[in-house]
Formats: sequence, structure tokens, C-alpha cells
Amino acid sequence: MSAPPQWVKNLKPSGTPSSEVLEQERNKSNVNADSLSTFLFTKEGRDRKQRVLKTLQGEKVFDKSQNYFAGRIDRFETALARAKKLAQIHSRESWTQEERVVANELISEPGPYGLHESMFLITLRDQGTPEQHEKFLRPAEQYKYIGCYAQTELGHGSNVRGLETTATWNPDDKTFTIHSPTLTSSKWWIGSLGRTANHAVVMAQLIINGKGMGPHPFVVQIRDLQTHQPLENVYVGDIGPKFGYNTMDNGYLLFNKVKVPHISMLAKFSGVDPKTNQYVKPASASLVFGTLTWVRSTIVLQSGGVLARGVTIATRYCAVRHQFQDRDAPEWHKGENQVLNYTTVQIRLLPLLATTFALHFTGKGMMALYGANQKKMSQDVGKVGGAQRGAGPEETNAGSDLLADLHATSCGLKSLASFTAVEGLEVCRRACGGHGYSSFSGIGPWYADYLPTATWEGDNYMLTQQVARYLLKSARSVLKGNEPTNDTTAILSNFLQKQDTGAAFDVLGNDSDVVAAFAWRSAFLTFAALKHRDEQKRSWNSLLVDFYRLSRAHSQYMVVKNFYETLQSASTDLDVETTGIMHKLFRLYALHTLEQEASEFYTSSAVTVRQIELARISTVMKLLEEIRPHAVKLVDSWEFPDWQLDSSLGRYDGKVYEDMFYRASELNPLNKVTVDPYPDSPTLFKQNDAGAMKAKL
Amino acid sequence: MSAPPQWVKNLKPSGTPSSEVLEQERNKSNVNADSLSTFLFTKEGRDRKQRVLKTLQGEKVFDKSQNYFAGRIDRFETALARAKKLAQIHSRESWTQEERVVANELISEPGPYGLHESMFLITLRDQGTPEQHEKFLRPAEQYKYIGCYAQTELGHGSNVRGLETTATWNPDDKTFTIHSPTLTSSKWWIGSLGRTANHAVVMAQLIINGKGMGPHPFVVQIRDLQTHQPLENVYVGDIGPKFGYNTMDNGYLLFNKVKVPHISMLAKFSGVDPKTNQYVKPASASLVFGTLTWVRSTIVLQSGGVLARGVTIATRYCAVRHQFQDRDAPEWHKGENQVLNYTTVQIRLLPLLATTFALHFTGKGMMALYGANQKKMSQDVGKVGGAQRGAGPEETNAGSDLLADLHATSCGLKSLASFTAVEGLEVCRRACGGHGYSSFSGIGPWYADYLPTATWEGDNYMLTQQVARYLLKSARSVLKGNEPTNDTTAILSNFLQKQDTGAAFDVLGNDSDVVAAFAWRSAFLTFAALKHRDEQKRSWNSLLVDFYRLSRAHSQYMVVKNFYETLQSASTDLDVETTGIMHKLFRLYALHTLEQEASEFYTSSAVTVRQIELARISTVMKLLEEIRPHAVKLVDSWEFPDWQLDSSLGRYDGKVYEDMFYRASELNPLNKVTVDPYPDSPTLFKQNDAGAMKAKL
Repeated sequence: MSAPPQWVKNLKPSGTPSSEVLEQERNKSNVNADSLSTFLFTKEGRDRKQRVLKTLQGEKVFDKSQNYFAGRIDRFETALARAKKLAQIHSRESWTQEERVVANELISEPGPYGLHESMFLITLRDQGTPEQHEKFLRPAEQYKYIGCYAQTELGHGSNVRGLETTATWNPDDKTFTIHSPTLTSSKWWIGSLGRTANHAVVMAQLIINGKGMGPHPFVVQIRDLQTHQPLENVYVGDIGPKFGYNTMDNGYLLFNKVKVPHISMLAKFSGVDPKTNQYVKPASASLVFGTLTWVRSTIVLQSGGVLARGVTIATRYCAVRHQFQDRDAPEWHKGENQVLNYTTVQIRLLPLLATTFALHFTGKGMMALYGANQKKMSQDVGKVGGAQRGAGPEETNAGSDLLADLHATSCGLKSLASFTAVEGLEVCRRACGGHGYSSFSGIGPWYADYLPTATWEGDNYMLTQQVARYLLKSARSVLKGNEPTNDTTAILSNFLQKQDTGAAFDVLGNDSDVVAAFAWRSAFLTFAALKHRDEQKRSWNSLLVDFYRLSRAHSQYMVVKNFYETLQSASTDLDVETTGIMHKLFRLYALHTLEQEASEFYTSSAVTVRQIELARISTVMKLLEEIRPHAVKLVDSWEFPDWQLDSSLGRYDGKVYEDMFYRASELNPLNKVTVDPYPDSPTLFKQNDAGAMKAKL
Repeated sequence: MSAPPQWVKNLKPSGTPSSEVLEQERNKSNVNADSLSTFLFTKEGRDRKQRVLKTLQGEKVFDKSQNYFAGRIDRFETALARAKKLAQIHSRESWTQEERVVANELISEPGPYGLHESMFLITLRDQGTPEQHEKFLRPAEQYKYIGCYAQTELGHGSNVRGLETTATWNPDDKTFTIHSPTLTSSKWWIGSLGRTANHAVVMAQLIINGKGMGPHPFVVQIRDLQTHQPLENVYVGDIGPKFGYNTMDNGYLLFNKVKVPHISMLAKFSGVDPKTNQYVKPASASLVFGTLTWVRSTIVLQSGGVLARGVTIATRYCAVRHQFQDRDAPEWHKGENQVLNYTTVQIRLLPLLATTFALHFTGKGMMALYGANQKKMSQDVGKVGGAQRGAGPEETNAGSDLLADLHATSCGLKSLASFTAVEGLEVCRRACGGHGYSSFSGIGPWYADYLPTATWEGDNYMLTQQVARYLLKSARSVLKGNEPTNDTTAILSNFLQKQDTGAAFDVLGNDSDVVAAFAWRSAFLTFAALKHRDEQKRSWNSLLVDFYRLSRAHSQYMVVKNFYETLQSASTDLDVETTGIMHKLFRLYALHTLEQEASEFYTSSAVTVRQIELARISTVMKLLEEIRPHAVKLVDSWEFPDWQLDSSLGRYDGKVYEDMFYRASELNPLNKVTVDPYPDSPTLFKQNDAGAMKAKL
């Protein structure tokens, strides 16, 4: 931890300074990173980010320099300090919700108020009556009540209907008894619960007069407002360390017959009439249902940026890093080669670079669709039946065609997008070679924190059933001769009409044909699955693997389509050269995906084997070569501040080695200890006495 | 951390007790897990494991209960205590090397003596002269010198020739000057160096009379033997936290013109004659070369067990865990279904279960090949030219056909096997749903520690060039009409003869045909690559992606072949039923791989599109159904003690929920702190005064 001696300070990295290398990279590309940034985020969004960044950097508590070193308890304590400060700034600066979101993105670490500020407040707002707003929401907004959303249990994750916690109505004193009958009924994984919250929205099986009415939300106080100790007959704590997300206190929670008053049951949609002791049926759950779709759409939108962090870091480092010589290089050019020039690196990073944009545009498309749907729904409220968290509209006989399409789309895309980001980040980490394994790469910790996205808000495998169910239903409708009502039924109908004459898509020459080929494959797989289910009467379980593939295929079609359509309308915002490169990125994403999924494309006769061969050995390789010179400029357009990336390898100025060395030698607390290395010596650290060793042995 | 109240202690998980569920699983399968274990590990190996396990469990220092909670410095301190104790036991009990290896596997955490006990001792032994053995090896064996192997640098990983550290010969005083001329020349990632070692084998560019002679090994003292402080002009420390491996002190090291005597250069193979000041050329480096092949073969052998830990944990938990109902289940059977019954879970876990055996048998095959080669080499020493660490025999004109084949095989299989294990572990973690993300799953920490295997001992992408180079060379030889000399040239030759008539492999009906189809595809890709390189004169760089695929294809062929051949000879050791299931696992591994890589198989005409379709929709699905009832018994045969797995989810007795709950509520130190949750309060933890918050803000 002491500063290095002068002779070490005098050392410089060998070769061309990395900052010059990146400058050269930037100079040789005509991509306009600035206008591309504006196209991605709008001028207003970019300004907002800079403004919030400046505020955060001015506060000592947000200093990141010890983030990678600290242990769990210390990290949690720091995260709590940050959460408090953030709440203070929010109030002091009268931040908008958008500014708060940007602040969270820049800080890039989950915090102990996370679930209070999202699910707790949202649930109180959306599912509470005006009276409940007064009683619960107001104090919660003022952080007098700090809450969480307690749904999943030790024994039940995705399957909400299987929850075991009960809320039994007591007609005598007009209360509910909240109870945990088994060990597996313990609430588990509940963010902000472990140490922070004093209230919880508890999802519990409502029981009236011995009859189960399904899971409903109850507001329950769990800790004393002064001492912060658990209330009587409440057992609550932190569930322990996780692969990531360790700045958050995910918790467990058990109740031993705790009584709460009638007002505790959030009653906007359903409730118990205290006079008749009868259940009041839900009028409409479409708003709740909409929230889930909105959450999934947000995941899709974020996935592009999540992946782009890894791609930015890996691309910059691979441009800076020189290793080995090109085997065929002429004698006069025998220096070590930039790693980014190797095709094995390009084939890993550049399709992912294209994917970042593909996912971003798809997410924006989803949000637009969601907005349109909300508008429509506000006119339709009352037509749609009740729906539970996690259940699809097919199961609840929802009528809205747009809603069903949006629901299925959000499920399929959430699954595809989050897996793509998760797997892509690991590819980026590996592309950084050995240094990718260091926490200072900034990729590993980010990956670890993002990972649960593949499981929460609907497990990525489970969700694909929703997509398949919707596609099968749409296919049945088309087979009956119904007119197409949306894009999904349109592509199914188109396939039906042309399947006999066959497809002849010019995927290598024509961009709209590429989109059509993806649509064709999706429709082909839909009708194949329908045949298995309806004609061959195969069991649902035996088809799950096919459904997963179908969902993936359909979602890839939507990504390709969104990317294509965004570029069609981009010409007014971007210059010709930048647009040209974006079109190449579109083709790279589409043709690389097509080649990866070759089997399904030729089986469906969407393309020929020869076309796939050509896509692989010629078109994709040529696109890599054409995009390579613009890679650094393209990641620049994502405009991540160094402060956000917190990565030695991904620095904008390329000073990779200086930064790695500085963090290791001057920030690393382990270098404070001097060990006693000999096996027979009882001392471990020379600073301690022999007691430490004794205690361990 | 306090024990839960009585009402919590009284709680039990709902449903059938998990231990009964696992017992039922074990009862319904006829697989003989016991004889399968012996077949995998031998009786002697199994006994050894039990013996060592008992010794370790008797020592308090090896208690694992706080492993997942402790921060880095504490974990490192504990790891040091364990390393010391292990060295003491080793000496006390006169352990064999095999017993020591088993102990490390059971402890399952890298330790500060790791590189001392492996690369430091091995290098001294294999590359030192008898005089150097006296001076360096003896004190090292007695832990008076504690060392490491300092090769990679901040700026150079795989490319050993690019190392920047210099060792300049001083004819006047017969010394070498070890020097770090740049920041990038800092040694980096060196295990056991950061805090522990007092000596290092330093790989440095030897310079004699201004002329570079390439990298050579030097033994250099770096810390004082008494104070353990760095010597003058040595700058050394720990490189900081990593994604995993945090019980190890990977270090950095810089020298400012440090003089070392003539004896410091390890001189078994080459050296400097102090009288003439001339370089003495290496006589033979085949033993060094052999070590690398041995290390890679070990990685292949271990990969099966590495993956099997994840598969064991996920399989047991998915058998115990019940979630959702089977959609088609009859009314009388409407309980929640075992997760392992869902085909989306089976398609992820069961092929990986098959893979664990495939890799294990392949590793054993590699070790046998290595043994045969060592025997042969001891007769051939002197025929083979010098080879550098990381360089292949093609580059050094090595003559031995067997050696070249073994080298290429070890490169390709190391790449395939370690990637398969890495990716498979993440699949297992996800198959555990939300709980897979908890450290208590045991998969995440294990994955994180194993991950660097994909990068070290040859980056998994880089290595595939060695395989391609060897296959191209073999193909050229076959094209010239040379007789096949080994299996590789035999399959290439066979392909050439039959290429025109084509293949008609009965992959769905005949096991040996499956192996032949894999060989055919590998040969097809080899000749395709050869055409690109030799006829079309395409650049090496443009072919790297094809080479990667080629290496993967060839390695998969070797795995399939090893699995097949092992089963051919297994009939005497295993009963009919167990052998039958093993054959099904072979088919599952082979056909699932074939289906995943379908594109290459049909392009090579090894199989038809229809066969692949059938493999996917019928054969593989049927195999899943047939293997499913034996899954728990099959993972039992890997015989991991619970102590080794250290996993709530993977417990042999299935008491998943009790164990999760116990660790969270009674072992978790975060539950000792009470937070002050309000944003405007300056206190963070109620135990501390307001100073803690103040310091953070």
C-alpha cells in the first residue's frame, strides 16, 4: 500500500503508448460516434448522464476505489451509506425518476433500498386503495417505512401458486393471521429484507372460512421502528453470500401466527368484506399484468447496455494489447500484432458489438409497443380477466390481441436478451485473456451482479412456454382461416400460403430477405410444434425442448426485424458513412445468427446449405474485416464514462497497464500484511501474534 | 448468528422428506454405483480418498463452515494456515504424492504453497544440475526456500518469446543482471509470489555479449529469509482480487538490475560457459516439452470430475425439488412434479452427466498414451530438437510421430475439455434455479476457481492452432501417399479412399458407425482447411476460425472414440445392467454432440439431414427418458463426499432446505449487525458509533 520506489515510478509500458494506439484507432474511422450516441440516447439523455455523473463524483461516499477489495460486510455497509446519500441527494436536488435511474446505472451496484424504491412502492401504489395509500404509501415515500416485496419462498420460486405462507381471515376480530407452516414456506431471496426493511409486502395464500383463494399481497410490519429488532414471532435475516449482488441484503422471513388488521390486505383489486366475511373478486388485474410486461421490456432494453459494457472493455483492451506476430506478415512488419486483428478475436467480439445495437433497438421497440398498449388498455379496462404474476393471458382467457402479443413478445425477448447478455459478457471476459480474470477488468463483477436476471422475472427456460403457447394459439387461428390481426399472425399466414411453392430468400444479397428468412423459420417451427401437439397428441412435457427452440427462433426474428426497421428510419439522424457501418452490423448480427442456427434454417428450407456455407466462409468473414477499423469508435458511441466502467482494461485513454499496476500496488490492502511463510512457524501474519494461527488450528 | 427460537426449530420442509425422495430414486435404479465407482477410480483410489478424508476432517483448520463468508484477507490467512498444516501432515504421515493430490482435491481451494509445491519444485528438479539440486532443490523440499514460477508478465501471457525481463551475462564477475526494463515487463499472475515466496524461478531473456538467446530460467531470491521483506531493488506484491482463486496470492515482481551468481541459471539443458563466456546450446528439451503435455493431459483427466461436481449437485437438487404440475398429468396425480422430470431440465443435465464419463475416460486414455510416450522417449532422447514452453514440435522439427500426435491431442483436448467443464458448470448452476446463485449451492465458487483453466497452460483458442497445424501436416503426408502411422493418419487416409463413394453411416443404429462419422467429419474439415491454405493460399489469420472448428471436431472425435473403446473393454468389470446404461450414456453424448454440431456433419455428408432430425426429435429424447431413472445413482458413482462438495443443494441425504436455512441463519456473520435504516440518520450499524458513516461520507 505504500507508494513504489522511484525506479518503479520511472517505468513505462513498452512499445507505442496505448493512448496513441487508441487515438490512431479513432482517427482511422469515419464513424460519427457523437451523432450515433445521440441517436441511441437522445441529446437530453446524454446531458442528463453527464449532469448526474458530476453530482455523484462530487460525493466521497461514491468513490469506487475500494469496491473490488472489500469483504461482504464492509461492502454492504458502504452500500447502505450510498443508499442513504442517494436518497438525500434525490430529495435535495429534486431529481426526476429518470435521473435516479441514471444514478443507479452509473453507480452500478445494487443497494439496500433497492426493493423499497421499486417493488415495495410500486405495489403499494398500484394495488393499494386510497386509504392504504395514506396509511402505507405516504410513510414509505418518506422512508419512515422501509419495505420489500416478499414473494418467493425457500421451496417455491417461479411457481407462485405453490406458495405456502398463509393469511387466514379471522371473522371474529376482523384480522388476518399470517403464518409460515413449514420450513420451505420461509420467504427467501427477498431483496432489502435481510437487514434493512421494517415492512414487507407478503404474498400469502388467502384463506377464508377454510377455503383457499390463492396468493394475495399483505402489508406486514416486521421490525420495530425504533430498535430495528424483529417483532415478536417474526424470524428474519440475511440469506448469506451469493455469486454476486453482495451489496444487497437478500433475506429470509418466517411468521409464527402473526395477526394483522383488515387494512393490511392490499385491496385495490380484491379483498375481504369485513361485514359479510366474503371474498371480493378481482375486478381487473390487467394493470398488474402490465407491470410484469413492463419489467421484462426494461430487461430487454437494458440488455444491450449491459452487454455493451463488456464489449467496450474487451474491444479497447484488444486494440491496445499486442501479442504474437501475424504468421504471414512481411519481414518489415514483424512486430507484435494487435489482438483485435486476429480473426478468432473478431469472430467473438464483433458479432457481440452488433448484438449490443440489435438489443438496444429491440428494447426501444418493445417500450414503444408497451406505451401503445397501455394507451389502448386504459380504454379496455374491465374486458380482461384476472391474471396472476407469472401467468399468461392464455390461461386467464384475456381477450386483447395486442396484450397477448406483447406478453408473449416480452417473455421470449426477456429470455433471449438476458441470456445473450450473460453469455456475451463471459465471451468478452475471455477475450481479455488472463487479465480478464482480474477484478480490475471490471467484467467479472459486473457479470456476477447481472447473472440473476436470467432467473428472475420469469426463469428464462420457463418463460419460453408462454411464447410457444401464444404461437400455437395464433397458428390455430390462422389455420381456421381468420385474417391476420398482427405481425405474428401475418407471418404465419404468409408461410401457410407459400409453403408449397417454397422460399427462395436472397439472404446474402438482400436485407429484407434476411428478415423474411427469420420469419419463415419461426413460422415453420410453429406449425411443426402444432402438428406434434394437436395431431400427434404428444405430451406437453415431451415438447418443452422444441418450445424453447421455437421461442428462441421467434425472438431472434423480432430482434432482426427491429434492427432492420430502426435502420430504415435512421437515415435522417445519421450521416451516410455511419449508417453504412450500422447496416453492416445488421448484416453481421443476422448472418452470424443464421449461421449459428444453420440447422433450423435449412430444415425449414428458408435457405440452402450452399447459402449457409457462403455466409460462413465468405460474407461473415468479410464483414468482420470491414467493421474491424470502426470497432473502437463504435464502442465509444455507447459513451460509458470510465467512472461507470471501473475497469483498468476498458479505459478510454488506453492506459491499461498503468492502471492495473496502480490498483495492485497502491490500493490493494493485502499488500499491507507480511506473512511468516514457514510451515513449522506458528505465526501467520507477522503483524499478529501467534494467537491467530492458534485460533485457526 | 444466535440459534433460532423453538417455533422455528420445529418447522419441517413440506411434502415427502427429501431424504426419502432420494432413497426412492436410488431404489428404482439397478445401476451398481459401487462397482461403477471402482471402475472409475479403482479400489485403491477409493480407499485412499476415504483415508485422507478422515485425516483432514480431524483437523480444525480444515473446517469449511466459514469459507463462503470470509473476506479475501481472512480467506488468504486461513489458506496459509491450511497450507502449513498440510505440509506438516504430509511429513508426519509420510504421505505419497497421490495422497497429497487427493487431499488438495478434497480441500478444493488453491493455497499459498500451490506453486511452490508444483512448478517451483518440478522446474528445479527437471531443469537443474546436480549441483543446483543441492543448492536450491534440497532447501526448497524442506520449505526453507519457498518459491514460485515467474513466467508471464503484465504485457505478455501466452507469447513466451515476447517476454521483456532480461538476464544479461556479465563476463567480468561471472554474474547475471536480472532487470525489468519496462512496466509491462513486470511479472504478473505468478501464483504464491504475492505474499508467500522468498524465491522465484524467473523466466528472462538471456543476453550474452549483446545478443539475445531467448527465454531461460533463473533462480532468484526475492525476500529476506528472516524478515520476509523484499530484498533491495526488488518490488513485489499481490496483484489484487480476482473472479476466483482468492485464497492464492498471485503476484507481481520487478527487478532493478539485480545481480545473481552463475549458478542461478538452471543449466540442465543449456547454459553459459563461464570460462569462454559462450552460450551452451540445449541438448534436448523433450523432457520439458513432455511436462507441458503431461500438465494438459492432467487437465483433461480432471475435467470430468470438475464437471461431475456440478452435475452431482444439480441432479440431486433437481430430483429433490418439486415445482409446478405436469400439464398433462391425470387428476389423481396433480402434485408438484420433480424438476428432473421436465425435459428442458433433462436436456441440459443428462448430456452433461454423459460428458463427465466421456471426459474421464478420455483423460485416462491420454495418461496411458503419455506413459507409453515417456517410455519410448527415454529411448529416443537426443533425437528431438529443442522446444520452448508453448511451442509445438512442428516448429522445432521434432521427429517423433507419437510425440507430435500426443502434443496435438493434448492441446485440442485441453481446449475442448476445459471449455466443456466451464460451460457445463454454469449450465448446472442455472438448472438449480434461484438457489443456484447462492454460494451455498457450491457451484458458483467452484466455477469461479476453475475458470482460469481455460486460459492457462495455453489459451483455449490459441491452442487450437497447434492441432490444425498437426492435422494439416498429417494430411499433406497422407496426400503424398505415405502409409498411415497412427490413428490420425489412418482416418485421413480412409477418408481419402472413400470420399468419392461417400459415407453411409448408420449413426442411429450402430455405435461404431457413430465413431466413424465423427472421424469422417474431422477428416473432411482437415482436407477442406488444407485446400484453403495450400491451394487457395489463404492467409493464416483468415483461417483461424476454421482451425478452431477443426480442432474442436477432431477433439470431439477423440472423446467419442475413447468413450466407445473404454466400454468395449468394460464388460468384465461391470454387470450387464450398468454396462447397458453406460452404453446409453455413450449414445447420448455422441448423438447430442452430433445434433449440436449438425451443420458440419451434413456438410461433410457423414450423415443425412433426416438422420439428424431423427437423432434430435426421437433418439435423444428417448435416451433422456431411459437414463432419467438412473441419474441419481449415476452421480453417486462419482462418490464425492459431502465435505468435498460443501453444497446445500448437493447433499447425499437430500436435506437441502434444512442445510440452506442453517447456513443462512446460524453461520452468516452479517446477521450479527443491526442497521439503522433511515436515510437521515448518520449511523449505519447500530453497534458502531456515527463515526463509521462519517468516514464513508
